Amino acid sequence: MEEGHVQVIRIGHRSARDVRMTTHVCLVARAFGADSAVICGEPANDVVESVRKVAENWGGRFAARYEPSWKKAVLEAKKRGEAIAHLTMYGEPVEEKMGEIRKRGKVTVVVGAELVPGEMYGLADYNISVTTQPHSEVAALAVFLDRYFGGKELGAEFKGARLRIVPSAKGKRVEETNIKG
Amino acid sequence: MEEGHVQVIRIGHRSARDVRMTTHVCLVARAFGADSAVICGEPANDVVESVRKVAENWGGRFAARYEPSWKKAVLEAKKRGEAIAHLTMYGEPVEEKMGEIRKRGKVTVVVGAELVPGEMYGLADYNISVTTQPHSEVAALAVFLDRYFGGKELGAEFKGARLRIVPSAKGKRVEETNIKG
Repeated sequence: MEEGHVQVIRIGHRSARDVRMTTHVCLVARAFGADSAVICGEPANDVVESVRKVAENWGGRFAARYEPSWKKAVLEAKKRGEAIAHLTMYGEPVEEKMGEIRKRGKVTVVVGAELVPGEMYGLADYNISVTTQPHSEVAALAVFLDRYFGGKELGAEFKGARLRIVPSAKGKRVEETNIKG
Repeated sequence: MEEGHVQVIRIGHRSARDVRMTTHVCLVARAFGADSAVICGEPANDVVESVRKVAENWGGRFAARYEPSWKKAVLEAKKRGEAIAHLTMYGEPVEEKMGEIRKRGKVTVVVGAELVPGEMYGLADYNISVTTQPHSEVAALAVFLDRYFGGKELGAEFKGARLRIVPSAKGKRVEETNIKG
């Protein structure tokens, strides 16, 4: 895809409660074309490891890492000149702001778990809503990235995959491949 | 929105593991324009109740109900003439099949939890993939509905809402309203 670097930061991860949801956030980031994810909050080695295994089997260069301080992760992205887009139901509509965000070339997308520190709203260049209804950070991230990449990400090939699905009207077809990335 | 009735069926719900994920499935269904959800598998009264509370506060007519037998729920939808679209990473690309599905007028979208019975692939009129990568049923549902409604659902108003968000560049603005549905 032509667009520049896309990073996803998951803030407020809780080891006891959020393993599955944070894993879905990372897998959505990968499947919808982001380059990397940073998980912030409580330790998330289990999530990092399960994302690593998915990437090993299904290809591409996506990697997730753990960084305790969400603020450090966000400030580093700002320093690199990335647009900071924080997804929140309170923000401005994605359909109005996407053109502007895409022009910035590089973007870090921030998604929270249940409680997002107020400071995040100020640090963000864009607070962006995907509908103004309560739903799911996993869904908001997917739709944001789908708009960012204009749908092209849906058919992307992942280099170096060991496993590849052959789309099929009924049933499951998985190929083992020897493509090298 | 102009399109016909849209129902979501969540199959394979497990009371101990899936409460949060199934809740997200239902909230995404509501936020992205579906009319109702049926949760199948183990009892899900807690999910039904928390979705009811969201709908009470945020408006609209969406309701979730529990039905133990996924097969009964799917066969009832078939009998009503709804197109059955089962979301699975093994299916045919959403971007290729959406035109055909939209023509059917009414659709039931089926999303599984971890293990989907093989029989479901045969009962579905369409097995549909949103990317061929492993990610999240919550994300797949959001992108499917976003394509189904052509993005119009993002700005939808929910009648009878007690609470309504005023989109804002920084911070949180919530209005209490007196609109009657």
